[in-house]
Amino acid sequence: MTLAANINFLLFNGFETLDLFGPVEILAHIESHQLRYFSLTGGLITSTQGVRLMTEPVDAMPQTGILVVPGGLGTRTLIYDDAFIAALKHYAERSEYCLTICTGSALLAKTGLLDGRKATSNKKAFDWVTSVSEGPHWIRTARWAVDGKFYTSSGVSAGMDMALGFIADRYGVEKAESIAKAIEYHWNRDPDDDTF
Amino acid sequence: MTLAANINFLLFNGFETLDLFGPVEILAHIESHQLRYFSLTGGLITSTQGVRLMTEPVDAMPQTGILVVPGGLGTRTLIYDDAFIAALKHYAERSEYCLTICTGSALLAKTGLLDGRKATSNKKAFDWVTSVSEGPHWIRTARWAVDGKFYTSSGVSAGMDMALGFIADRYGVEKAESIAKAIEYHWNRDPDDDTF
Repeated sequence: MTLAANINFLLFNGFETLDLFGPVEILAHIESHQLRYFSLTGGLITSTQGVRLMTEPVDAMPQTGILVVPGGLGTRTLIYDDAFIAALKHYAERSEYCLTICTGSALLAKTGLLDGRKATSNKKAFDWVTSVSEGPHWIRTARWAVDGKFYTSSGVSAGMDMALGFIADRYGVEKAESIAKAIEYHWNRDPDDDTF
Repeated sequence: MTLAANINFLLFNGFETLDLFGPVEILAHIESHQLRYFSLTGGLITSTQGVRLMTEPVDAMPQTGILVVPGGLGTRTLIYDDAFIAALKHYAERSEYCLTICTGSALLAKTGLLDGRKATSNKKAFDWVTSVSEGPHWIRTARWAVDGKFYTSSGVSAGMDMALGFIADRYGVEKAESIAKAIEYHWNRDPDDDTF
């Protein structure tokens, strides 16, 4: 049995489709958790792949729960959006856990909350991500990294492995394995095994 | 170089999130292809995981290109929706290729277009899917199956492996490998290797 929790996704135009929906698919398999989708002002948000998704305004986001932030090309300009970074910092500080996928870790690094913490990101964008902030201990070879309540994953599909790793840490490895089986997914379960 | 093509996704309420967005992520990496999202009447469509996605009405769908149909709990009632099945048949007949994920093959089987063809589906729903139509040659142990222009995949994440397999067949294995690398995905490339 798992306690109920909010899982809140913070989105923006130019997010990477699978960064978001891989973890959505997996985290939705935790019973009694409510998944909700937010953006700075609410309304339709468009992914890099042209998916148009309805969101709630970030002001409506619960102050507790699990915060998830994808990456994508939109992050390249979003690091200069003070309102977005302030909102991210506000909710990330209050979250019980905060998970980022791909270049989502650049956004979180920009808030300063990753300073002094282990973190990783997409390999193809690694030089850019690490240039955003020198505060984190950036780890290039990692499928995902965990430091306290912060989980950061490598590129795109690594977010699915991290989501299952998060579930294993919090709810037990059997739960993660049962979800992987239900969605017929070959879970790459070692966070340090990174061949990319 | 690849020729331009339309990639049209036909959606419905209660589709499975990753069935759709795994292939979207991968197929979007083919240059000059346009991805569009349709439903019977257009407007917002909600996945089983609560994702609300904007769609165009199916009447606006191009008569050519690649048609992709996800599965999900919504298929259980959709097989009785004559208007949806008629629309699916219309566009599937005219498509250059037709790809289904998970229980999407039950919908396609209902049109009769899979009669006498090899096809597969989700393992957990296999008995239900095969009960929808005895026309196809249902293959239980397959990551995905190909028969002519019809590609059918096993459950949820198998759709990503099939999408890469489709790209390998049509555009070359190097293209599929480069996309898998770009999204840091471990491609399970053997359609007959099914451990679920």
